[in-house]
Amino acid sequence: MKKIESAANPLVKNTAKLCKSAKERQNSRLFVAEGLRLCRDAFFTLQASGQLAKIKYAVFTQEFCTDNAEFVMAVEAAVCECYLMDERLFKKAADTNSPQGVLFAIEWLDNNFSFDTIKSNPNGKYILLDSIADPSNMGTIFRSANAFGASGVVLSGNCCDVYSPKVLRGSMGAVLRLPFCTVEDTTQFLTNFNTCGESYAAVLNAEAQSLNNCSFNKTSLIAIGNEANGLSESVIANCTHSVYIPMGGNCESLNAAVAASIFLYVLGKQ
Amino acid sequence: MKKIESAANPLVKNTAKLCKSAKERQNSRLFVAEGLRLCRDAFFTLQASGQLAKIKYAVFTQEFCTDNAEFVMAVEAAVCECYLMDERLFKKAADTNSPQGVLFAIEWLDNNFSFDTIKSNPNGKYILLDSIADPSNMGTIFRSANAFGASGVVLSGNCCDVYSPKVLRGSMGAVLRLPFCTVEDTTQFLTNFNTCGESYAAVLNAEAQSLNNCSFNKTSLIAIGNEANGLSESVIANCTHSVYIPMGGNCESLNAAVAASIFLYVLGKQ
Repeated sequence: MKKIESAANPLVKNTAKLCKSAKERQNSRLFVAEGLRLCRDAFFTLQASGQLAKIKYAVFTQEFCTDNAEFVMAVEAAVCECYLMDERLFKKAADTNSPQGVLFAIEWLDNNFSFDTIKSNPNGKYILLDSIADPSNMGTIFRSANAFGASGVVLSGNCCDVYSPKVLRGSMGAVLRLPFCTVEDTTQFLTNFNTCGESYAAVLNAEAQSLNNCSFNKTSLIAIGNEANGLSESVIANCTHSVYIPMGGNCESLNAAVAASIFLYVLGKQ
Repeated sequence: MKKIESAANPLVKNTAKLCKSAKERQNSRLFVAEGLRLCRDAFFTLQASGQLAKIKYAVFTQEFCTDNAEFVMAVEAAVCECYLMDERLFKKAADTNSPQGVLFAIEWLDNNFSFDTIKSNPNGKYILLDSIADPSNMGTIFRSANAFGASGVVLSGNCCDVYSPKVLRGSMGAVLRLPFCTVEDTTQFLTNFNTCGESYAAVLNAEAQSLNNCSFNKTSLIAIGNEANGLSESVIANCTHSVYIPMGGNCESLNAAVAASIFLYVLGKQ
């Protein structure tokens, strides 16, 4: 394993940039998974799908290697570029305040499902996130989608960055396990989707059905909108149905991640 | 309205402390509601329950007064201490980066329901939060509890501070509208509760029932545990039932606010 002991080593700065900057992740098409839990998740998920080559490089501290010898050996056997980094430099490279001493730089995983996958899955359940802005919300929605057995997540192009460390952590690694794709043209996507399934816009309007009266027995998709502004007009117009979660109280709305998770819970029961 | 134009005025520092420090809120038994939405919520909720005297003082900027003359007049007529604060000082006093120019210091509202309220409400639905640590989660749970018509929220003594600005904002003001109480002894509370209702510990264990098979047709309470460690043993032991949300996937658990919200959604349908 190569040692990195100088702050001048470009890997320190480049990894820190990958953690902090969505633009950097976009340019390099890499992201960083950090911590034992996320890195184990990434390793075993990519191993199971024969994609270990997606791990571009792995970085460890000496302490982590001592405490997790078996895992480190497995990674070393499979990942070409492995580095042992000075503890002090690892803190500069990593995103967390008390890093655990392990991180992977991984090639982007998205667009790992497509319209063909949807067509060939007769009872698939999907969620479309339209302009979700808060990384914690996005992470929580991935976690719930995974928990309730959703088939995939569709992201509009203007969502927050799915590869930000906050999304990865909030998702508890579900981003690594669940198929997802980014679509720049939601109208085109929904037009295709509607040829083989039913799409539901989550909105409060006169035509919307109560979630309590919906049965999602076909391939189904629920579209969730931005935290402050809700769904865009074009997504509402291109969904075949609209649906709302019945509420009492003086409450105008639910948290976006909560609303998405309740839909996913009900979808998962069908 | 008295003018505050000097940074030396103790109200500036005291208000900032109330925003930042749970200990300060505890000592003074005051909290701060900030922004038009929360302050309107607080004003009209307290007015409706004849408790306007709980607003200890109100602070405005000149710009806010100009833009919201009617609301400011209503507050001035009802609240003894009203201050006009220099814009620059308001930023020091307030918790947000871009304050809207209105804040209230309000006396604590909790313990505004008790076991007697529970006994006299034949079909009440309650949620008990045991050691919830994250203010965003607590805020989101209050918001959902309000949306789904819960009768009240019970907090264990070691939860995060319900009066932190993060909880108030995340709850969208539901903390101001929904009855809640803090109980230091959850065992004692549950022993009392069980004399008139059914209590459900949210856990994954062999005895737990699936949420899909539960009917909550009596007075019911669901207990939700800490984000990392779940429910304490004593709360589990003192609930009459245990219940879990059925999940698939490789997922160990849901976000605590999501789990609580799904329970509240199902409780609200009964």
